[in-house]
Amino acid sequence: MTMWRATVLTLYPEMFPGPLGISLAGKGLANGLWSLEARQIRDHATDKHGTVDDTPAGGGPGMVMKADVLARALDAVSADNEGSLRPRLLMSARGKPLTQARVRELAAGPGAVILCGRFEGVDERLIEARGLEEVCLGDFVLSGGEMAALTLLDACVRLIPGVMGKEASGVEESFSDGLLEYPQYTRPAVFEGRPIPDILTSGDHAKVAAWRRAEAERLTRERRPDLWAAFLARKKP
Amino acid sequence: MTMWRATVLTLYPEMFPGPLGISLAGKGLANGLWSLEARQIRDHATDKHGTVDDTPAGGGPGMVMKADVLARALDAVSADNEGSLRPRLLMSARGKPLTQARVRELAAGPGAVILCGRFEGVDERLIEARGLEEVCLGDFVLSGGEMAALTLLDACVRLIPGVMGKEASGVEESFSDGLLEYPQYTRPAVFEGRPIPDILTSGDHAKVAAWRRAEAERLTRERRPDLWAAFLARKKP
Repeated sequence: MTMWRATVLTLYPEMFPGPLGISLAGKGLANGLWSLEARQIRDHATDKHGTVDDTPAGGGPGMVMKADVLARALDAVSADNEGSLRPRLLMSARGKPLTQARVRELAAGPGAVILCGRFEGVDERLIEARGLEEVCLGDFVLSGGEMAALTLLDACVRLIPGVMGKEASGVEESFSDGLLEYPQYTRPAVFEGRPIPDILTSGDHAKVAAWRRAEAERLTRERRPDLWAAFLARKKP
Repeated sequence: MTMWRATVLTLYPEMFPGPLGISLAGKGLANGLWSLEARQIRDHATDKHGTVDDTPAGGGPGMVMKADVLARALDAVSADNEGSLRPRLLMSARGKPLTQARVRELAAGPGAVILCGRFEGVDERLIEARGLEEVCLGDFVLSGGEMAALTLLDACVRLIPGVMGKEASGVEESFSDGLLEYPQYTRPAVFEGRPIPDILTSGDHAKVAAWRRAEAERLTRERRPDLWAAFLARKKP
C-alpha cells in the first residue's frame, strides 16, 4: 500500500507537523502510515530578497502572493514522484466549505498538496492556471492558511487505516447520517443531582437505540436547521 | 488594558501554543498582548490512574469524558482570578458553527476558557451544569477539540489590537459585508499569457471599486448560495 502523502507549501514550515506530531496522528506519522512535508514558498522566489508578495493591482490594503513564485513552488512538487496525481488545494476564506464527504474522498486518495495563503490572498491567475481547489473551514477569518491546513490534515489523517485504532468509532458513522450526535453519559450514575436518563441504564437495547435516534433528530432540528432540511430532503422518495 | 486570556483544558497540553507560538500570533504572545495557558485535564482525575473517561451509558463504541473530572478542571479555572468572567466553550462536532461575528465578540471580551473534547464526547450533564457553549468549526470530524481550539484562537488573536499590524486589512471588512473576497492580482502584468484585467490598471478608482464589488457579488452567488441569500435578505427594507 502506498503511503498517504501530504505536501504543504507555506511561509511557515516550522508550524508543521506541530499538533499533528502528537497523539495518534503523530504516532501514525512516526510509524509511516502517512507522511508530511512542509516546503518553504520563499525558496522559489526569483529575487535575492525572497519576495513572495506584491501590492494589489488596482490598489487597496495588504499584499497579494505572486503567481510566478507560487507556480514555481507548485511545479516543483509536481515534478517529484507522484506529485501531480494528488489534488492541489488552496486554503482560502473564499473556498468551498470543507465537508466530511470531501474529507473522506481525500483520505481515500493518494494524499494532498496544500497551498497556504497569507496576506490578502493569492493572484487569481495562479488559481486558474493550476486548477487549484479552494477550500475553507467555515465563515471566519484566519491569520493564514496554515491552521486551516493543519485542521484539514487532522480530519483526513484520522481516517487513514491504522491511525485511530479503536478510537475511530461511532462519531464518523453518525455524521455520515447527516445528524448530530446524540447526548452521551457515563458514570457516576448521579452528577450534582443529575441522573443518567433511566432508559440508558434499562438494558433494553431497542429502546436505547430509539431514544438515541430521537435525540439525534431533536438536536439536529434545534441546532442545525440546515442539516435537518437536508436530512428530510434525502428521506423523501 | 487587561490582557486577553485563553485557558485550554486538554489531554494534550503539549499541542499548545504550537502554531500559535509562531508568526504574528506568536509575537503577540511573547509581547504580552495575549496569554495562553494549557491545563492537563488528567490532573483533576480522582483516582490514582488518572482516569478521565468511561464507557457510554447504554452501550456503544468508544469512551465518554467524565462529568466529575471535567467539572473539577473547569471549576479550578473559575476559582482563579477572573476565570469565571470568561465564556466557557466546548469544541464539539455537535456545536453551533463558528462565525466571524462570534469571533469578533470573543476577541472583544476578556478571553475564553476552552474545553477540548476527545473520544465519543463529553457527559451531557457537565455541558448542562456548567452552561458550556458548544462550538464547531464545520461539518467535518476532527481527532479531538485541540485543533479546533487552535483554529478558534487563531481567529480571535488576529483581532486583538496590536497583533496583526498592517496585515489585518480588507479581508475582515469584506467578510463583515457577508460577501466573499473579490479576485486579487499583482505583478507580473502577464503571467503565462494571462494579463491582469485592464480595469485594475486603468487608474480609475471608481471603476475599480465597482468591478470589485460586482466580482465579490458574482463569486458569492456562484459559490455560496447560502451567503448570497442572507446578503439579499439583509438588503431588503
